[in-house]
Amino acid sequence: MKGAVLYCPRDVRIEERDDPTIVEPTDAIIRLTATCICGADLWPYRGIEAADHLLMGHEYVGVVTEIGAEVKNLKVDDFVVGSFVISDNTCEICQAGYQSRCVHAQFVHGTIGTQAEYARIPLADGTLVATPGQPDPDLIPSLLAASDVLGTGWFAAVAAEAGPGKTVAVVGDGAVGLMGILAAKQLGAERIIAMSRHEPRQRLAREFGATDIVVERGDEGVARIKDLTDGLGAHSVIEAVGTQESMMQAIRSTRPGGHTGYVGVSHGVTLPGEELFLSGVHLHGGPAPVRRFLPELISLIWDRKIDPGKVFDQTLPLGQVADGYRAMDERRAIKTLLTL
Amino acid sequence: MKGAVLYCPRDVRIEERDDPTIVEPTDAIIRLTATCICGADLWPYRGIEAADHLLMGHEYVGVVTEIGAEVKNLKVDDFVVGSFVISDNTCEICQAGYQSRCVHAQFVHGTIGTQAEYARIPLADGTLVATPGQPDPDLIPSLLAASDVLGTGWFAAVAAEAGPGKTVAVVGDGAVGLMGILAAKQLGAERIIAMSRHEPRQRLAREFGATDIVVERGDEGVARIKDLTDGLGAHSVIEAVGTQESMMQAIRSTRPGGHTGYVGVSHGVTLPGEELFLSGVHLHGGPAPVRRFLPELISLIWDRKIDPGKVFDQTLPLGQVADGYRAMDERRAIKTLLTL
Repeated sequence: MKGAVLYCPRDVRIEERDDPTIVEPTDAIIRLTATCICGADLWPYRGIEAADHLLMGHEYVGVVTEIGAEVKNLKVDDFVVGSFVISDNTCEICQAGYQSRCVHAQFVHGTIGTQAEYARIPLADGTLVATPGQPDPDLIPSLLAASDVLGTGWFAAVAAEAGPGKTVAVVGDGAVGLMGILAAKQLGAERIIAMSRHEPRQRLAREFGATDIVVERGDEGVARIKDLTDGLGAHSVIEAVGTQESMMQAIRSTRPGGHTGYVGVSHGVTLPGEELFLSGVHLHGGPAPVRRFLPELISLIWDRKIDPGKVFDQTLPLGQVADGYRAMDERRAIKTLLTL
Repeated sequence: MKGAVLYCPRDVRIEERDDPTIVEPTDAIIRLTATCICGADLWPYRGIEAADHLLMGHEYVGVVTEIGAEVKNLKVDDFVVGSFVISDNTCEICQAGYQSRCVHAQFVHGTIGTQAEYARIPLADGTLVATPGQPDPDLIPSLLAASDVLGTGWFAAVAAEAGPGKTVAVVGDGAVGLMGILAAKQLGAERIIAMSRHEPRQRLAREFGATDIVVERGDEGVARIKDLTDGLGAHSVIEAVGTQESMMQAIRSTRPGGHTGYVGVSHGVTLPGEELFLSGVHLHGGPAPVRRFLPELISLIWDRKIDPGKVFDQTLPLGQVADGYRAMDERRAIKTLLTL
């Protein structure tokens, strides 16, 4: 089968690999229907994270082609959506809703690599969720989004306690930030302020539910959020970038007692203890426990209540994966869907 | 009147000051019944915070002797307990329960100084809470504790989401940590692990509700907490010190998805973003909004359901305040009550 490998920074190739087979009785093999490129894939692509023959891709939807002897909740031909973290969904941490930190957690990125034709998914019952039937083709992008980018934006909104009566600010206008807007809207937020200075992303932000746009960044951005919230700051702030600047912008935009939900993969961030102490904010985030939200997200998509697939503004065949990385790296594409 | 002034590090004196008078119509004047020395007072005492003729003391109970024209909820002769932060208790932040970050917040420490015979309390309606009547003398220490050390430990336990079925670990065996134990017990925690290596404090910890004692610190302490919690970490961790080591010990002792409540006044702390991101913990803390909890705490004390006053293991007249600072600095006293 074919699959994407990042040889070294900026050198991603499609390579012939062995077809995966059942190894553990809890495994399932899926034939990918669609996959995509994540903002997080750009960290190793840009050489900010180690990149040495990495198996790329961790977002996926597909059809089950084979199951291990102990798989109970899935059957061959099921259409499934999976999380970017393998989880048993039965341990105490999973049961508390933190499947991304399951005691048997394994990142799909780097070890499985779903920018490929097939994938072996360990702990299939705990990781994959079957859709109610075979999806209409136009639902595929949205179901694929649930696998990470929507699940992550949703978790950020939940971590930030977005909800009725709340003003939510969103730091980062990448795909995850945009999904955070959609999630905040769906969770009933009253006002959603997108921090973005890119016109096409502002447009999409408004489409997903943003009521206000702030183009300023850093201290100026914080001041604008304060202006819009009686000097107090937002109740809920979603951080979807992962840099020092974006984290501080998010924390400083949050009112005392408010909630900062951060999901941008943290790189080179150090938080000043004194400032955090005096801020009085709630801070929560990390790799999203997407599996917690998958049943609800699939249901919302299946019933056509949300359309997160709109976040994909480029579609390429898997064979052109390198073009997709380049487009996202140069910010010509928000998010690239790969067809098989 | 007499009041304590920190001239410079390690030089605290009782000085004659003008009796306070009503300045704003929302002020009240109180005659102190008792006051005390806080662990936080040791930061400037030790020269770690600036100390130049500071008016010391921020914990207080007393009797109202005079009220301004706009004070509505208090009358002369009321016995009152106050928070260590002045608050209006009406702004949006106060109403959300974060009175320590009231839009009109003012720290009592350094500006008013309640290690004194009298104090002018601004925004008296929003800061002070009257007891149901004149308290029995044996209730005074517990009511005084509510003013900060109990209120702070309580907030830490609430921030850490201590409650039924939860395992709570407490980092720091000072007065606030001990009050955190009392609070966790009262909030229904199933298991409370005190991290302490001082025998008299361990004894008090058990008296307040600790079920286990861990004497190890740092990485070893974290490993012991993991041992006691099936390798997962505690659900709730209270941090009551404020140093880099104690913060990391607290975060690392918390299970993924668990809650770290931190109230130790942060000094020289920088939190590593990547580790925090991957930890999956909820982090919340800061100066406690004691005013939120005062009515409930006064009620529990009045009904003799809790006895936080036991945290005071030294009692001195105000005139001997310098001896009290020395005893706490040298850890000969856990907490010193000052009588008037």
